[in-house]
Amino acid sequence: MSFAFPIRIYWEDTDAGGIVFYANYLKFMERARTEWLRSLGIAQQQLRHETGGIFVVSETQLKYHRPARLDDQLLVTAELRQAGSASLIIGQRVLSNPEQKNAPENLPAHALLCEGTIRIGWVDAATLRPARLPPSVSAIFERLVIVRNSAGPGLSTVKP
Amino acid sequence: MSFAFPIRIYWEDTDAGGIVFYANYLKFMERARTEWLRSLGIAQQQLRHETGGIFVVSETQLKYHRPARLDDQLLVTAELRQAGSASLIIGQRVLSNPEQKNAPENLPAHALLCEGTIRIGWVDAATLRPARLPPSVSAIFERLVIVRNSAGPGLSTVKP
Amino acid sequence: MSFAFPIRIYWEDTDAGGIVFYANYLKFMERARTEWLRSLGIAQQQLRHETGGIFVVSETQLKYHRPARLDDQLLVTAELRQAGSASLIIGQRVLSNPEQKNAPENLPAHALLCEGTIRIGWVDAATLRPARLPPSVSAIFERLVIVRNSAGPGLSTVKP
Amino acid sequence: MSFAFPIRIYWEDTDAGGIVFYANYLKFMERARTEWLRSLGIAQQQLRHETGGIFVVSETQLKYHRPARLDDQLLVTAELRQAGSASLIIGQRVLSNPEQKNAPENLPAHALLCEGTIRIGWVDAATLRPARLPPSVSAIFERLVIVRNSAGPGLSTVKP
Repeated sequence: MSFAFPIRIYWEDTDAGGIVFYANYLKFMERARTEWLRSLGIAQQQLRHETGGIFVVSETQLKYHRPARLDDQLLVTAELRQAGSASLIIGQRVLSNPEQKNAPENLPAHALLCEGTIRIGWVDAATLRPARLPPSVSAIFERLVIVRNSAGPGLSTVKP
Repeated sequence: MSFAFPIRIYWEDTDAGGIVFYANYLKFMERARTEWLRSLGIAQQQLRHETGGIFVVSETQLKYHRPARLDDQLLVTAELRQAGSASLIIGQRVLSNPEQKNAPENLPAHALLCEGTIRIGWVDAATLRPARLPPSVSAIFERLVIVRNSAGPGLSTVKP
Repeated sequence: MSFAFPIRIYWEDTDAGGIVFYANYLKFMERARTEWLRSLGIAQQQLRHETGGIFVVSETQLKYHRPARLDDQLLVTAELRQAGSASLIIGQRVLSNPEQKNAPENLPAHALLCEGTIRIGWVDAATLRPARLPPSVSAIFERLVIVRNSAGPGLSTVKP
Repeated sequence: MSFAFPIRIYWEDTDAGGIVFYANYLKFMERARTEWLRSLGIAQQQLRHETGGIFVVSETQLKYHRPARLDDQLLVTAELRQAGSASLIIGQRVLSNPEQKNAPENLPAHALLCEGTIRIGWVDAATLRPARLPPSVSAIFERLVIVRNSAGPGLSTVKP
C-alpha cells in the first residue's frame, strides 16, 4: 500500500458550489507529498539550507471523480512512479477515509474522489534553473524503485 | 488548559517573504474553532442540515508576534470568552508546538506567534440574518461558562 | 487572438520559494474562464438562479514553463477547444503581459509561463449529477465552433 | 476620497456558506494596500531589492457588516491613519461597487461590507527584525500626513 495522509475539509477548502474548490486538491496533494518525503527522511526546508535547491512542480494532471464537502475526512496517497536524475513522477489519489462516521453525505470507504499525476523537478532556489537531485536524495528514490521492481511481476509496477 | 489543535505549515501557507501569509492565521484559527466545536459535540455541517443555521464571523482582532515558517509545527488554541444568545467571543492563540524537533529556525516551545479574538454569530443559512443559537448549542456554551466560573481563582482551565 | 484577462501577482499568490504557488494558476485560469464566459453573455451566478445548474471542473492538465513572481503582470487566455452537450474543453495560457515595465525579473513580453487544458461539465447544483447544458448556453458555444471552423486555414483567431 | 481599488469575487473567494470566506477580506485589503503603495510610487518588490526590507503586518482589526457573494464587484479603500518611523496604521473599507449592474443580490451602491484597521511595520527581509522605514518611503508618508492636516479643522483627521 502506498503512503497515505489524512486530511479534513474545512470552510476554507470549500466554495459557493458547496464542494471543495478544484485548485485545493493540489494543496492537499502537496501536503501529502511533503509528508511522504518527510517519511522518507527528506525535510525540504532543511535540504534547502544544506543544498540550496528546492522541488518545483513542472506538470500536473488531475481527474475529478466525486466532490468532497465540508467536514469530510480524506486520505491522500503518494507513490513514486518514475525517478530521474533531475525529476520525479508521483501518482496521487484522494480517497474518502474509512474512519469517517456519521457523515451527512455518505461516501463509501476509499471512494476515489480525485487522482493526479505530478511531475516535480529539482532546481537551484536562487536561479530556479533545473539541477541534478542531491545524491543523498537520489539514493532514496533509487532504493524505492528497486524495492518496487523486486516485488515481482504479480504486483502492479506503480504500487511500491 | 484550553483546547489546542496541531497544525503543520506547508508551502501553500507561506509567501515570498519566506513566512506564513498574514491572512492564513485566520484559516488556522477557523480549523481550530471547528475542531473545538466538534470536541464539544457541535458538528457544523450536521447542525446546518438540522437547524438551517450556520456560524459566521462578525469581528476579528489579531496581533502577530513572531512569524511561522515552512515545516513549522504549531498549536492553535480556542477558548470561550463570552457566550450570548446569538453570538460568541472566542480567544485564540497560535503557539509553536513543543514536539517540534530539529527545526532550522528554533522557536522556543509554546512561543506565542499570533493571538486573536473572534466574534462569531449564528445566522439563518438562507437569508444570513442573525438568529438565536439553537437551544442544544446554547446549553453547551452555558455549561462551559459555569465550569469556568466555578473553577475559582487560581485555576485557569478555560480562562486566558 | 483568444480572450485574454489581465492578472497581477500579489503576496497571497506567492510561496516561500519566492514564486507563485503551483495551485494558484488554477485560480487564475478560473478567473479568466469566468470573464471569458461573461464576455460571451454567460453569468454563472445568474444562470444558477435560472437553471439550477453550475459548471464543475472534471479534468485539468497543466504544464509550468517559467515561474511568475510578486508584482508580475500576467495575461490569462481562454479559448474553446471542444464543445459537447454536457461538457467543454478549454485551452488556457498564462503569459507575461507586454505592458509590464521596469520589472526586476525581466520576462519577455508574452513569454509562456503556464499552459493548461481544462474540461468542465454542467451539473445540477443540488445533486451534482451531470446534466445537459441549457440550450441558451449550448447555442453560444456552437456559434463559437462555427466561427472557428469557418475561419479557414491560415487564420488562428480562436484556434489553439 | 481615499484610494479605492476594484475587486471582483470569483469561486476561489467563496465558501460553502455561499459567501466570501472571512480570511479573504485580508487578501483583498492586501491587494488594495499594494496598489495604494504603488500609486504613491512605492513598488514593494523593487524596494526589497534596493533596501533589503519588506512590510509585514503586525495587527489587524476587522468588522464584517454584510457578506459578499460570487460575481460581486467591490471597491477596497486604503488610507493612511498614522505614520511612525517604523510602522503605519492604515484604514480600509470594502464597499459594494456602484458600477455593479443586474446583480442577483442587489447591494446598494457603496454599501459597507467590511472595515479594517491594519498596522504594518518595516522589517529586514532576512532577519525579520523591525527597522526604520527607508527615508524615501518615510518622506512619502510625511507628505501625506501634511496634506491631510492642512485640509483644515472641518475635516476629520482620518479622512484625507
